[in-house]
Amino acid sequence: METSQQYPQGFSAYACNVGIKDDTLDFGVVAADKVCPAAAVFTKNNYPGAPVVVGKEHIQDGLLQAIVVNSKNANVATGFEGIRNARNMCQYIADSIGIKTEDVLPSSTGVIGVPLPIDKILATCRKVKAGLQPGNLESFAQAILTTDSRTKISVRKIATLAGQEATVYGIAKGAGMIEPNMATMLSYIFTDADTTGIDLQVELRKAVDQSFNCITIDSDTSTSDTVVVMSSGYAGKVAISNFQSALLEVCIELAKKIVEDGEGVTKVIELDIVEARDEVQASRIGKSILNSPLIKTAIHGGDPNWGRFVMAIGKVFTEKIPYENLAIQIGGTDVKDADAQVLQTLSQYLQENSEIKIKVSLGSGQVSKRFWGCNLSEGYIKENAYYTT
Amino acid sequence: METSQQYPQGFSAYACNVGIKDDTLDFGVVAADKVCPAAAVFTKNNYPGAPVVVGKEHIQDGLLQAIVVNSKNANVATGFEGIRNARNMCQYIADSIGIKTEDVLPSSTGVIGVPLPIDKILATCRKVKAGLQPGNLESFAQAILTTDSRTKISVRKIATLAGQEATVYGIAKGAGMIEPNMATMLSYIFTDADTTGIDLQVELRKAVDQSFNCITIDSDTSTSDTVVVMSSGYAGKVAISNFQSALLEVCIELAKKIVEDGEGVTKVIELDIVEARDEVQASRIGKSILNSPLIKTAIHGGDPNWGRFVMAIGKVFTEKIPYENLAIQIGGTDVKDADAQVLQTLSQYLQENSEIKIKVSLGSGQVSKRFWGCNLSEGYIKENAYYTT
Repeated sequence: METSQQYPQGFSAYACNVGIKDDTLDFGVVAADKVCPAAAVFTKNNYPGAPVVVGKEHIQDGLLQAIVVNSKNANVATGFEGIRNARNMCQYIADSIGIKTEDVLPSSTGVIGVPLPIDKILATCRKVKAGLQPGNLESFAQAILTTDSRTKISVRKIATLAGQEATVYGIAKGAGMIEPNMATMLSYIFTDADTTGIDLQVELRKAVDQSFNCITIDSDTSTSDTVVVMSSGYAGKVAISNFQSALLEVCIELAKKIVEDGEGVTKVIELDIVEARDEVQASRIGKSILNSPLIKTAIHGGDPNWGRFVMAIGKVFTEKIPYENLAIQIGGTDVKDADAQVLQTLSQYLQENSEIKIKVSLGSGQVSKRFWGCNLSEGYIKENAYYTT
Repeated sequence: METSQQYPQGFSAYACNVGIKDDTLDFGVVAADKVCPAAAVFTKNNYPGAPVVVGKEHIQDGLLQAIVVNSKNANVATGFEGIRNARNMCQYIADSIGIKTEDVLPSSTGVIGVPLPIDKILATCRKVKAGLQPGNLESFAQAILTTDSRTKISVRKIATLAGQEATVYGIAKGAGMIEPNMATMLSYIFTDADTTGIDLQVELRKAVDQSFNCITIDSDTSTSDTVVVMSSGYAGKVAISNFQSALLEVCIELAKKIVEDGEGVTKVIELDIVEARDEVQASRIGKSILNSPLIKTAIHGGDPNWGRFVMAIGKVFTEKIPYENLAIQIGGTDVKDADAQVLQTLSQYLQENSEIKIKVSLGSGQVSKRFWGCNLSEGYIKENAYYTT
């Protein structure tokens, strides 16, 4: 499906196994053949990983030429040594390719609090240039995974002003420790659209707020969350509205893929909060519903226990929605005061579908916002009880 | 263990099966032989159950003479009918015993959104007087349970000023939907201490803030939370400091019993937050740690994944604790920068103990606060996935 003509022009990639934890791909680089306008958003966790600290410095001028990522170790809570390791990864990559260290953005994802096996990693960084192949972004998408079961890629085409075609190619990883807040997990978006005159940082923030920031798997906010967009510009100029749509669609598709592949996930919940006063109210209530263990387990078991929605909305103490104004629909069926017949319908809907559509109307205003979450299953427990051991 | 001399003087109880869900005890009444000074705190959930609405009215004058509770149905999200049912329960009890309706406090606990089988319940209320037996509080403690596996009772003795003995006898139920916030789940505390001159409401609030409000099982705040204290006064006056200590000890013991018997719980976490700026900071960080699914599953699996503590503390965006000021101890062992030897020690501690002691030092001030939480196990999922079906 991801054929070479889907790649944006100007990007090469390399992926390999460095041996950080096992023998799967755990190291990847994407390099552009020129310096690119770029933008990024990062985790708001108060203990960001060393790569986030270094990445924030390197993106300050709005320019990047390469990204280096290792999986299986997050390089978080690793002190000055961790910062030095992240800087060295950038420098060794830059030296190998012949670019500036400040144009390399590093990421690491995996266990927290364990020093990187830095010698192995730097030895690989040193010889990266020889391994880079034009396009080849799927192998990079593979290398950044941790407990993810599959790669997450989303591609959109945009018509250029000159009648040609530009590409927006997005890659993400997710799986656990996922409630992006003001930021997100790892995601990289490459485009050959010429974005001159478009404020990439503003557009990325807007897209992230409607996509990655609307998902939750387990309410835990990673210390490594990073989304980056880089534009080579080779395909030529595009209408800003087309670029906005493509960027948003790619971000939403990647966000949904992260939820679908969440740890132990077998059901995805698509939650529309409608008639909200504003986005803050919608987000508070949307997240309270999707983070409730009792709702997540009810969805898991196909149990039409709609009273738990009342509980989860009611525990947002700051948002007092009169009960009579509240409407809750599951699979298009109103659930308040459900009789036995309705409960039967709901139970059947929950058991037969793997994408559960829920609509909650607050009767407080005109704002609608969509969120995505998932069931809580025994599989999540199993994956996380023995992660480092 | 709970012998009759442990009962406070002046209270009688009755419990039976009404047939709300199955054939276990599901209905209980405690009645005093005189009107008692009383105080109560309730859930802050925005959709309180009908009994909470009625109970708030009846406690306003600081007096109660009886408590009526049914389990297996919460009488929440049941509209005007639900309110009328709660009022009728009080009235029928009052008529049977020959007391005032406004001196009866009702509670219901169980599934949300299902009308009470009110005819069966009122028929039982009508004949309650004949069933009341002096003391008999264990059968009441049994009748209020839902998914709890055992009764929760805590008793303390206080010397009276006249050299006699007064009793504080506390009862609670818990199990799931437990993160009491400003209030708690169902708990009833009976005493024969004469509390004239003691502000029961103030003392109850203080005790609750250090006990029930410091526990979390699953971060979900029930719509039915209620704690009540009633004092018959028969044993005579006590020193206020003795009463405070006994009340606090009873509340803490009941709170811990609720956590120990939480749904699917096999390990209890006792978390001390020390060197906090204030109680707000301690609570934000304490709750973030104990509600993190990744920490709860790591404790479940005996996985010494201490980086998850860094994540959970760091995701409290409002509380920026410099990383170098932060200290984390598990079972008395410092975990930051743990080497293989330390990880081995931690792993052994987590696997061999069912009460896990954790201390987190924030280096921000002088305030200490203790919290209790639990592991997240497959048992929690199983109990909650099929609750109503």
